[in-house]
Amino acid sequence: MTAMRMETDGLGTIEIAPDAVWGSQTQRALENFPITGVSISHYPELIVALAAVKKACALTNRDLGRLSARKTEVIAKVCDEILDGHHHEHFVVDVMQGGAGTSTNMNANEVIANLGLRALGADIGDYGQLHPNDDVNRSQSTNDVYPTAIRLAVLARINPLRDAMRTLSRAFHERAEVFDPVMKVGRTQLQDAVPMSLGAEFRGFGTTIDEDCERLDDLSRLLMEVNLGGTAIGTGINAPERFGETAIAHLCEITGQPLVPAADLIEASSDLGAFVMFSGTLKRIGIKLSKICNDIRLMSSGPRAGIGEILLPPVQAGSSIMPGKVNPVIPEVVNQVCYQAIGNDLIVTMAAEAGQLQLNAMEPVIIHKVLETMGSLTNAMTVLSERCVKDIVADEERCRALLENSLVKVTELAPVIGYEAATKLAKYAQINGLSLHNAVEPALSDDQAKVSLEHLTFGHTGGVA
Amino acid sequence: MTAMRMETDGLGTIEIAPDAVWGSQTQRALENFPITGVSISHYPELIVALAAVKKACALTNRDLGRLSARKTEVIAKVCDEILDGHHHEHFVVDVMQGGAGTSTNMNANEVIANLGLRALGADIGDYGQLHPNDDVNRSQSTNDVYPTAIRLAVLARINPLRDAMRTLSRAFHERAEVFDPVMKVGRTQLQDAVPMSLGAEFRGFGTTIDEDCERLDDLSRLLMEVNLGGTAIGTGINAPERFGETAIAHLCEITGQPLVPAADLIEASSDLGAFVMFSGTLKRIGIKLSKICNDIRLMSSGPRAGIGEILLPPVQAGSSIMPGKVNPVIPEVVNQVCYQAIGNDLIVTMAAEAGQLQLNAMEPVIIHKVLETMGSLTNAMTVLSERCVKDIVADEERCRALLENSLVKVTELAPVIGYEAATKLAKYAQINGLSLHNAVEPALSDDQAKVSLEHLTFGHTGGVA
Amino acid sequence: MTAMRMETDGLGTIEIAPDAVWGSQTQRALENFPITGVSISHYPELIVALAAVKKACALTNRDLGRLSARKTEVIAKVCDEILDGHHHEHFVVDVMQGGAGTSTNMNANEVIANLGLRALGADIGDYGQLHPNDDVNRSQSTNDVYPTAIRLAVLARINPLRDAMRTLSRAFHERAEVFDPVMKVGRTQLQDAVPMSLGAEFRGFGTTIDEDCERLDDLSRLLMEVNLGGTAIGTGINAPERFGETAIAHLCEITGQPLVPAADLIEASSDLGAFVMFSGTLKRIGIKLSKICNDIRLMSSGPRAGIGEILLPPVQAGSSIMPGKVNPVIPEVVNQVCYQAIGNDLIVTMAAEAGQLQLNAMEPVIIHKVLETMGSLTNAMTVLSERCVKDIVADEERCRALLENSLVKVTELAPVIGYEAATKLAKYAQINGLSLHNAVEPALSDDQAKVSLEHLTFGHTGGVA
Amino acid sequence: MTAMRMETDGLGTIEIAPDAVWGSQTQRALENFPITGVSISHYPELIVALAAVKKACALTNRDLGRLSARKTEVIAKVCDEILDGHHHEHFVVDVMQGGAGTSTNMNANEVIANLGLRALGADIGDYGQLHPNDDVNRSQSTNDVYPTAIRLAVLARINPLRDAMRTLSRAFHERAEVFDPVMKVGRTQLQDAVPMSLGAEFRGFGTTIDEDCERLDDLSRLLMEVNLGGTAIGTGINAPERFGETAIAHLCEITGQPLVPAADLIEASSDLGAFVMFSGTLKRIGIKLSKICNDIRLMSSGPRAGIGEILLPPVQAGSSIMPGKVNPVIPEVVNQVCYQAIGNDLIVTMAAEAGQLQLNAMEPVIIHKVLETMGSLTNAMTVLSERCVKDIVADEERCRALLENSLVKVTELAPVIGYEAATKLAKYAQINGLSLHNAVEPALSDDQAKVSLEHLTFGHTGGVA
Repeated sequence: MTAMRMETDGLGTIEIAPDAVWGSQTQRALENFPITGVSISHYPELIVALAAVKKACALTNRDLGRLSARKTEVIAKVCDEILDGHHHEHFVVDVMQGGAGTSTNMNANEVIANLGLRALGADIGDYGQLHPNDDVNRSQSTNDVYPTAIRLAVLARINPLRDAMRTLSRAFHERAEVFDPVMKVGRTQLQDAVPMSLGAEFRGFGTTIDEDCERLDDLSRLLMEVNLGGTAIGTGINAPERFGETAIAHLCEITGQPLVPAADLIEASSDLGAFVMFSGTLKRIGIKLSKICNDIRLMSSGPRAGIGEILLPPVQAGSSIMPGKVNPVIPEVVNQVCYQAIGNDLIVTMAAEAGQLQLNAMEPVIIHKVLETMGSLTNAMTVLSERCVKDIVADEERCRALLENSLVKVTELAPVIGYEAATKLAKYAQINGLSLHNAVEPALSDDQAKVSLEHLTFGHTGGVA
Repeated sequence: MTAMRMETDGLGTIEIAPDAVWGSQTQRALENFPITGVSISHYPELIVALAAVKKACALTNRDLGRLSARKTEVIAKVCDEILDGHHHEHFVVDVMQGGAGTSTNMNANEVIANLGLRALGADIGDYGQLHPNDDVNRSQSTNDVYPTAIRLAVLARINPLRDAMRTLSRAFHERAEVFDPVMKVGRTQLQDAVPMSLGAEFRGFGTTIDEDCERLDDLSRLLMEVNLGGTAIGTGINAPERFGETAIAHLCEITGQPLVPAADLIEASSDLGAFVMFSGTLKRIGIKLSKICNDIRLMSSGPRAGIGEILLPPVQAGSSIMPGKVNPVIPEVVNQVCYQAIGNDLIVTMAAEAGQLQLNAMEPVIIHKVLETMGSLTNAMTVLSERCVKDIVADEERCRALLENSLVKVTELAPVIGYEAATKLAKYAQINGLSLHNAVEPALSDDQAKVSLEHLTFGHTGGVA
Repeated sequence: MTAMRMETDGLGTIEIAPDAVWGSQTQRALENFPITGVSISHYPELIVALAAVKKACALTNRDLGRLSARKTEVIAKVCDEILDGHHHEHFVVDVMQGGAGTSTNMNANEVIANLGLRALGADIGDYGQLHPNDDVNRSQSTNDVYPTAIRLAVLARINPLRDAMRTLSRAFHERAEVFDPVMKVGRTQLQDAVPMSLGAEFRGFGTTIDEDCERLDDLSRLLMEVNLGGTAIGTGINAPERFGETAIAHLCEITGQPLVPAADLIEASSDLGAFVMFSGTLKRIGIKLSKICNDIRLMSSGPRAGIGEILLPPVQAGSSIMPGKVNPVIPEVVNQVCYQAIGNDLIVTMAAEAGQLQLNAMEPVIIHKVLETMGSLTNAMTVLSERCVKDIVADEERCRALLENSLVKVTELAPVIGYEAATKLAKYAQINGLSLHNAVEPALSDDQAKVSLEHLTFGHTGGVA
Repeated sequence: MTAMRMETDGLGTIEIAPDAVWGSQTQRALENFPITGVSISHYPELIVALAAVKKACALTNRDLGRLSARKTEVIAKVCDEILDGHHHEHFVVDVMQGGAGTSTNMNANEVIANLGLRALGADIGDYGQLHPNDDVNRSQSTNDVYPTAIRLAVLARINPLRDAMRTLSRAFHERAEVFDPVMKVGRTQLQDAVPMSLGAEFRGFGTTIDEDCERLDDLSRLLMEVNLGGTAIGTGINAPERFGETAIAHLCEITGQPLVPAADLIEASSDLGAFVMFSGTLKRIGIKLSKICNDIRLMSSGPRAGIGEILLPPVQAGSSIMPGKVNPVIPEVVNQVCYQAIGNDLIVTMAAEAGQLQLNAMEPVIIHKVLETMGSLTNAMTVLSERCVKDIVADEERCRALLENSLVKVTELAPVIGYEAATKLAKYAQINGLSLHNAVEPALSDDQAKVSLEHLTFGHTGGVA
């Protein structure tokens, strides 16, 4: 059994597992935050973002004469490996943590320093040669590193999310093309309203997702404003002049993201408005998606005692007791993911409101919940596209039967015979269980009946969009 | 034109309308809080509660030798008039106010003092004879008066709310009796499941409201613990010994509420846990009521292209363009009231969390929103009972047709022929558009078919609850 | 006593007060929705918006040959009077209503018809001459009128809101200029961090409000997309060709708003995404404003046992029992308005998610709550500017004393003597109650002490932003 | 490489990994719900609860002659192993799933059947000998098994949660004893109010947690009402008479929980009111805990430029750039856990409201989030007790200095010299930077001054609670 490694910092000496490449501050954080059991490496985008920031800062420190070429090189090398997906297992602090991200930043600083030391052939913990704070964190503060990294992490999850949205939207538009000829009863307030085509309904689902893509792109722009260079509370203390813009330029190159420096660094250090808007956009996606899933479940209700206008592909048995039952399980799981998006937005709201003075210490839960929502929405929309929407089939016969049996064409008669006479007709038909056609003569005056019958027979078919 | 009255306090001199019976502090509050335009007299229960507390305290001060009989008498007289519904128009500060209720308390102190002065034949503002703080507020602080009064205000709204709930529950139970013989398709996840009676469904609505009544009674008990006597932050400063218990005893008598003193006055001064639980109970009522309204709207969907198992009484025309359309407008307004209950609960949550150290300054928005929710829920449930539920009619023929056309009796066959064979049967019937009966022979082995047919013909009718 | 007026519609005959100018459908709505006691005229912007839509549609019907010049003229005349603020008292239906706005639309149709009849010298209720549905509502449906009108109502409240925000931002920026020379302790996580100027802190408040103004402008654009011309569920049924674009053109002219037609009318009829984003923006404003108020209350805590860096203008006595106490009542009321913005956003969320199929029946609560939030935020920010921020005074002496007594300059030493030695120094000073200066020699090596003292004496003053 | 196992069900044939002991329905669920990557075995209490239900039902089926002794024995044996913590790795479906828990129930049925088959020496998948539905799920439906199991899972997490609460409460009460002699400034609205003891403040924290324990116990009782025996939608279909009460009796014995049968099985199948109240209680705990953490962070603010009445034990370095900085990281992480409790409650709210007709399909997200909240709160409170509260130290000198320097004793003078004179005195002292003592003579009349000085010198010390 190998001996524990000992490390000493301002709070004293602490034991670290011999094979761990983190240091004392990470170790203390591990012991302080045994909350969820989920480590920050659960979000690879966050680890990659930290490495990108650390590399950009090392290069900048070198550019500005604050870091030797040798140290720069080794830091950059380690960061590149992390960017390539290696070493993530050393990012061990809990996603739920106090300290405004200091533990996350120090986890990165310590792991990079120790991996760098190892690359230099030095001992782990021999920080005289490469120091987590004095070298890896040089010219930086958690106050600027962490807000920058969490924005990058979110930006990295936007493409997969948008892809899933586009896939879903395409699936709806594709179904819309197929369903355009299928006429059905349009409904308001669950009551029969006027005729429409099933295609128009599905096209609306596609349109609404498309609009959300636009919002996502709009609002994600807010996340591209970063406060790197602000160091402690945006004062820029301990960073050389031009550090911020240089580091951000490097960071743009490393990440491919068009980042821009925040105009007011003091404000940018504590403000989480970009996350509030972005999470609000995720909530909006959740709201719309939930509404769509509700509609799909409603339209596919049955198979015999519901509305039954569409048929969802069966993907699993629906019941442990009711044989042959098939349930809309895919839309149902999507609904739940949407509720999570809405509830997580409240967590973001509470955390954003809790900022005090020059910092918001509650950022860790914000990034945790935003990434959770993004991941679940991405997965849920992918499943919805692949395992549900693309194989939805219209029950054309059922749609036609419901439409023909309904009274919805009475609306077309209102401009012909007036709202009041049309109301009388509709009421007569409903009470007597007649079709509109058959109710015309008993319900209306002869003149009204004549024009009504003409209209119902030859009139336009319902102003279908 | 009458001259303005001038009043001077620690902040200087201020003008007050000549006919106003409030004083400088109320006047300042009026100018400081022009937020909603709704004054605290919008909630008469709150004004009555303030008067009850002021009377109880005056009597206690007299009992303990701190207030002359003459002053006590006049304060009590004015309070009695307020308790009888008079003078409420002088309670003018905005429902949304800073200051943790001080403006509300001072509005009461000043109005009572001035009405008392008038009763004594003295001039309004001649506080040497009867002082808002030194007499009316004697041995009290906003820190104990206000939390006590807002609890009383909520307690006063519980009876009307419970009455509305009981009325609604009765309406559901009464309908259940009528609907018991109506067999229908029970549904899970909007898919046909097993047979049930419409009566059982409506009885469930009644049961769930009954359970909410029990919760309301349970949780309202928490509001009966009051901190009167705690004065500033629960220290009891400036109150004589035994003030709290004596005042609470008087208050019980005046209000008829079985109030009890809080055990830890320091904790009770800042804690709003009772409101959190109570608002949570209102939220629960909202959640359940919303689910019920959703169900009612779903079951009454149609009239021809929906589920149509029940018919709601038409209460207004449903459309400005679609003649004869009738919508479920009553359940719809109830749904919205429920969303308000849920959102208001979040306001209460945020405000409760915002307490700091020895006080929660955000109490005014809490009482505003709790009373708003209670009033709207009471009205909404009354309307739902009177204008919707009690006149709901079952479409028995439709219920029977849907049931007979469905495959839901297949579940009963599972213990007879096994889950797998039953699944095969259900699937065969659905794909081929057959009734269960007609699918038995083509779908099953001879043996299975025989017992199935026997069971479908003579078996029990479905374990209907 | 005057006899009641009788009116008959599809549901039967109903009594209306003799002086009322509304008709049967408004009357039924009054009886169906006794929920809040607050009528839609509580929001004059909504009444004005309805009149604008009705006028635009009348003009369009005339343009397209669907309405006589005489009827058009009288409808336009009545609408102009409503636009000028007259007749609002006849808009009586409750803000909380079922029916997806039909009652609001019919209240407008009936009032305009009857006022038109009166202008024509005809009897109220003589709809043969001017009909609420066949004339005033011609080529329209609640499904397009109401969504258009509620968007216009919100747009009308944006200018006052933005003005209040700009006023508040200016007040902060103006204070920032004054406070720039005041150096103080910057804090993260409520712990002393690094030096900063009070001016930078207040400028940050201004910046953050400015950013919210930009978001408000961005997101309000979404509300400019309207579905007029879609009639029932976006099908355009009963509207002549080109009705939508013509009516929207008229509406732009009447309102001065740059409205655009929705691209997908089916989607636009049920989608409330624009309100979700807009309400989310109001929530963001609430979150930031609440954080700012929290900071102001924290910085002004005291007067003797708190942080006390700033002094708020006293606006009212702070306590009914504690003489001389002055509380931050203005920021406190603003906090509560912010919680309301957050909770109301949840109500909007729930209502938006509850849309079903071709319509969202829950729009009334959405517009109610969005307008409530906008009004309260506008008032609260105005009060905050006028009665608090513009008269905030810095306690310069206190700021300086706290700064000099603190250890925050140790951060500047980290690049000079290394993070670990600087930590040792800070810890030594804190434990022994020394100033940084006095701790240098006992805590550090001679070399470190020398450069540290030089730096503390002559070094830059802290990278103050 | 081993061949995949093939299994056939109503939807066709599907491949299963050769070493997997689940069946086709679990496999389909795995493919349908790739949402979070977290499987239900993340919550061992849920797996144990499922096994308890399955065992209770097997015993009941045997008792009522529906299951052979041999099958009963093998099912019970497998369940006992699961109860002992074995086989949990086979519970693989995602915590976020559609289907109202059917996949979870079928995962249990299939794993128990296959492990039973293995114990019988039969092949996995040879369901003729022991069938997931016909035997393991006999007389049951997901509609009763799942609601029962999730209640049991929550009940199993209550003891650890209550223990963590009691530990925290004890830590506060223990500190209260130590801090009782420490007099300090009590504050309302962050402004100096009246004297109090630090012990009373900490005792209040303990009291409030104690009250939450009572609420937890009260409300958890609601979860003890279970619907086992209701089978599909509460009809009891396919369950023999007395199945419910017998199975619940077995379940009480197996779990040690005092469960009771639901009175209205139809209502109980779809109602989630118990979870709503319970989650609301967790929210209340979160609200109070968050307020306490805010207070602790406020009281420990500094070390030099804050309030600094208490010192938290340092548990990690507070900054990557600011040497020696120590932050209140433990209370900060607790705050975030509290926000999660609040946001998760909203998820529960949305999901509970989404129930439709005879079932709520959204139960999986409810149990996921309730268990997540319970786990995080338990861990957070444990950490708060152990790593923060129990080692909090009072800075007695600081408390005394702030108190002596303050004006808070002026309140005691109000009954002596009247509220107005006392206000004048406090104002004079504050403006002139004097102590109360020194302000008495210049500010007051001679008579007032005399009694004031007497009172300040010899008067009672402040009515400290």
